[in-house]
Amino acid sequence: MESALGFFVHSSLAPFASLVLKEIMSQPAAKTKTAITPTRAEDYPEWYLQVIKAADLAENSPVRGCMVIKPWGYALWENIQRDLDALFKETGHVNAYFPLFIPMSYLQKEAQHVEGFAKECAVVTHSRLEAGADGQLAPAGELEEPLIVRPTSETIIGETYAKWVQSYRDLPILINQWANVVRWEMRTRLFLRTAEFLWQEGHTVHATQKEAEEETMKMLEVYADFAENYMAMPVIKGRKTEGERFPGAVDTLCIEAMMQDRKALQAGTSHYLGQNFAKSCNIRFQDESSNMQYAHTTSWGVSTRLIGGMIMTHSDDDGFVVPPRLAPQQVVILPIYKDDASRAQVLEYCQSLQKELSAQRFHDRKVVVSIDNRDLRGGEKAWGWIKKGVPLRIEVGPRDIASQSVFVARRDTGEKASVTRAEFVSTIVNRLQAIQDNLLARAKAYRAEHTREINSWDELKAFFTPKNTQDPEIHGGFALCHWNGSREVERRLKEELKVTIRCIALDAKDEPGKCVVTGEPSPRRVVMAKAY
Amino acid sequence: MESALGFFVHSSLAPFASLVLKEIMSQPAAKTKTAITPTRAEDYPEWYLQVIKAADLAENSPVRGCMVIKPWGYALWENIQRDLDALFKETGHVNAYFPLFIPMSYLQKEAQHVEGFAKECAVVTHSRLEAGADGQLAPAGELEEPLIVRPTSETIIGETYAKWVQSYRDLPILINQWANVVRWEMRTRLFLRTAEFLWQEGHTVHATQKEAEEETMKMLEVYADFAENYMAMPVIKGRKTEGERFPGAVDTLCIEAMMQDRKALQAGTSHYLGQNFAKSCNIRFQDESSNMQYAHTTSWGVSTRLIGGMIMTHSDDDGFVVPPRLAPQQVVILPIYKDDASRAQVLEYCQSLQKELSAQRFHDRKVVVSIDNRDLRGGEKAWGWIKKGVPLRIEVGPRDIASQSVFVARRDTGEKASVTRAEFVSTIVNRLQAIQDNLLARAKAYRAEHTREINSWDELKAFFTPKNTQDPEIHGGFALCHWNGSREVERRLKEELKVTIRCIALDAKDEPGKCVVTGEPSPRRVVMAKAY
Repeated sequence: MESALGFFVHSSLAPFASLVLKEIMSQPAAKTKTAITPTRAEDYPEWYLQVIKAADLAENSPVRGCMVIKPWGYALWENIQRDLDALFKETGHVNAYFPLFIPMSYLQKEAQHVEGFAKECAVVTHSRLEAGADGQLAPAGELEEPLIVRPTSETIIGETYAKWVQSYRDLPILINQWANVVRWEMRTRLFLRTAEFLWQEGHTVHATQKEAEEETMKMLEVYADFAENYMAMPVIKGRKTEGERFPGAVDTLCIEAMMQDRKALQAGTSHYLGQNFAKSCNIRFQDESSNMQYAHTTSWGVSTRLIGGMIMTHSDDDGFVVPPRLAPQQVVILPIYKDDASRAQVLEYCQSLQKELSAQRFHDRKVVVSIDNRDLRGGEKAWGWIKKGVPLRIEVGPRDIASQSVFVARRDTGEKASVTRAEFVSTIVNRLQAIQDNLLARAKAYRAEHTREINSWDELKAFFTPKNTQDPEIHGGFALCHWNGSREVERRLKEELKVTIRCIALDAKDEPGKCVVTGEPSPRRVVMAKAY
Repeated sequence: MESALGFFVHSSLAPFASLVLKEIMSQPAAKTKTAITPTRAEDYPEWYLQVIKAADLAENSPVRGCMVIKPWGYALWENIQRDLDALFKETGHVNAYFPLFIPMSYLQKEAQHVEGFAKECAVVTHSRLEAGADGQLAPAGELEEPLIVRPTSETIIGETYAKWVQSYRDLPILINQWANVVRWEMRTRLFLRTAEFLWQEGHTVHATQKEAEEETMKMLEVYADFAENYMAMPVIKGRKTEGERFPGAVDTLCIEAMMQDRKALQAGTSHYLGQNFAKSCNIRFQDESSNMQYAHTTSWGVSTRLIGGMIMTHSDDDGFVVPPRLAPQQVVILPIYKDDASRAQVLEYCQSLQKELSAQRFHDRKVVVSIDNRDLRGGEKAWGWIKKGVPLRIEVGPRDIASQSVFVARRDTGEKASVTRAEFVSTIVNRLQAIQDNLLARAKAYRAEHTREINSWDELKAFFTPKNTQDPEIHGGFALCHWNGSREVERRLKEELKVTIRCIALDAKDEPGKCVVTGEPSPRRVVMAKAY
């Protein structure tokens, strides 16, 4: 019954074997056949790449470090954009667009900023190509000043804001930009770290420190809300240590999520930039008392990295699992028929079902339902949608029509059942919400299971050290530890354990203790983890 | 009453003087005060820039040739994206994203293509910056192969498609990309021609010539529909002559619009690329008879240039006029009050009016209504919104509340009237549609007035020659002329009259005649014009 590719001839009869392994990472590797090889337990990094391939989300391009985001992956980004953009607008922001290129001299104006970005940036030096004597093209028309392809836009936007801001009446400026940026990363990984990536960058200007700090916090809350309630990805809201701050920032807030290999993913950052960029770009205003003041600025961003986070938080050994709120398709209907007579009847039933389902609204948008009527075997189709992560899969054949029912499979739990059509239609919104809730609850439980207060160096070392490279046993996670506040300890953590302080959680309670490395006094615990 | 800036102290008393000049370009210059200086008749190119400035749409950036698209301008682009994207999806397309960079060698594969784009492109040659002995940064980490910032993506997307296409079952591929592109233009003008611009580029692959040609035509129709029914900008659908084709295309279809200086604006193009890029990129597939075939590809695009077209089609000497379907705000309410007592009453009335208006739908979207409660003089506010082009402006003061009415000003005609609140609320959708329709009708009438069949060289020369540089008299427009089909005639038109053949209209009737330049036989008329 099973084909060489792991597909089943008739999916409604086939056991969704691997889905019963809810917590495969916590279990010894099972010998059950899975749609993705290797499994998470066998080789997590490779599993991640295979999930992306099986779901047709993205691929490496011929241009070093740049990815091609394929339609299914881009549809996720479109949904992320749509929902985040609405949240930005609800909080008073508008969009604008600034140049792709930054004159080299601009980057130099903020000392820490240039140090942070000069080492890996695409430099444009010429403005045309010319054929040489050998007929081969070569760069020509050298520019007077090299241009940098923006790795982030604080400087170019700051220079523009300096012209816009004259008086306190011009403030605040609350602008966001959706754009591509380039950082010449040496080691790239689809979605998580690519030379070019898509993102949004908010850049705001305020009259006072207080207002700018409130903005920084407000956008962190927007990101946390989005991560938890749209992506179903729980996050810790925290503050970066000085050593981990954005180059040029006074304060960097972040959201940190735990992936299924128990590594941390920094999923978004919100920076209070103080007057650093205002000074380097000369953003000054006349205050109400007619004194000239430097403004206070912020910047905040999330990127296509979020898609990587979503994949690694929810997917299983059968492929991608998409949270319903961001799913490009929330329900797929697979018509099953054997001959032309049943074909017409089945298709008609499917279409009227599609119509009834799409007439309903899930979080204020029509439920997105498609019918997959491709000329493929049923099992091949079903597995295709499992790997793509569609939340609900419906199969409809003549038998179902006879009993006015539908056969429903739920992607997150693998649960399958025949339910009456009427009941399914009337519960579709609740079913989608149940999946959304389950994904968040499951991810929260996973994180809780792998978060531990650790009080000694030995224990910390053991926590972050696998017994051997194929060790399927649990190790690593979020270690909540005391820290003396020094960079030296951060350096040692990185060198000896490849661990960083992810953040000082905003809700960390005051709890005097002793640094896990030096034994020196510490006012509260911080979050330590290996990270992407 | 009038301030130095041309603002009025109380706008509801102020005459909207220049709005009565419906066809100022056709009239001798009037001495009436206008919000924009110079007027269209005085200096059209400068008027265009001043309209952009007064409406706060965009500005030049410190980076040569790159513009900053400001919030009001970007909101137009967001609306263009939203509506075009829906039209693309309705016609079966999906979005994806491909790399910003193109290896130099890719560009070389299609001979005409590289010739078309090599002369003006941004070339990335280095991957980092390093401080020299003098402490100054300089490009370092030279790349093995230079990368071109995409001027268009046929080659990089073609290389990717070659991997995706194996069999006829993989076809068609119907993908669109929203992206930024860079062409190192020497002379730039905001929106119309900038080094970096935003656009969409559709790239499709088909098994047969017929299907690819149908796609090319289908997307031209989508563009024409969008131009006329969303932008209210009438266009001629036509085919480019061989000399004006996209580099590498077999056939280029286009939409051409007439601006108010009677120049043509190419507003969108749709290319049938034949097998040219399929051959250079090796996009081949096994057909149903198991033979290997080269595919047929198309590409089609519109850009932020559309915003320039919208400005130049509808705006008047008081500033921008936005078609309601694309307006970021369709109605603005200006509360007018003198003291705190009336303030509360007026604001409450405005808010409930806003609520009633926004509850209604114009073309399936909520009517967008804002209240401008800034602490500015009424006239300054009103003129601000006139210059920004908002379709309907409402003023509400205690007197209006007493009579349960609103004072309505219509941007396109300048018409003003006090109407009952109930009537206004119940007619809002019709009022917006009436403005939309009027803008299209007005632009069509303008185009008709300045389109002429011309049969002799002398007449053609006179048509395109102003008597002197400040000549306010009508000259130029679309000349419908016979043409012998030769490039030599096109060259002569360009050199002697700065005129190009904009297109051979798709609906041009067969009408044998004699070439306007050589007297040689011609099967039908073509559209000649000066152009942007």
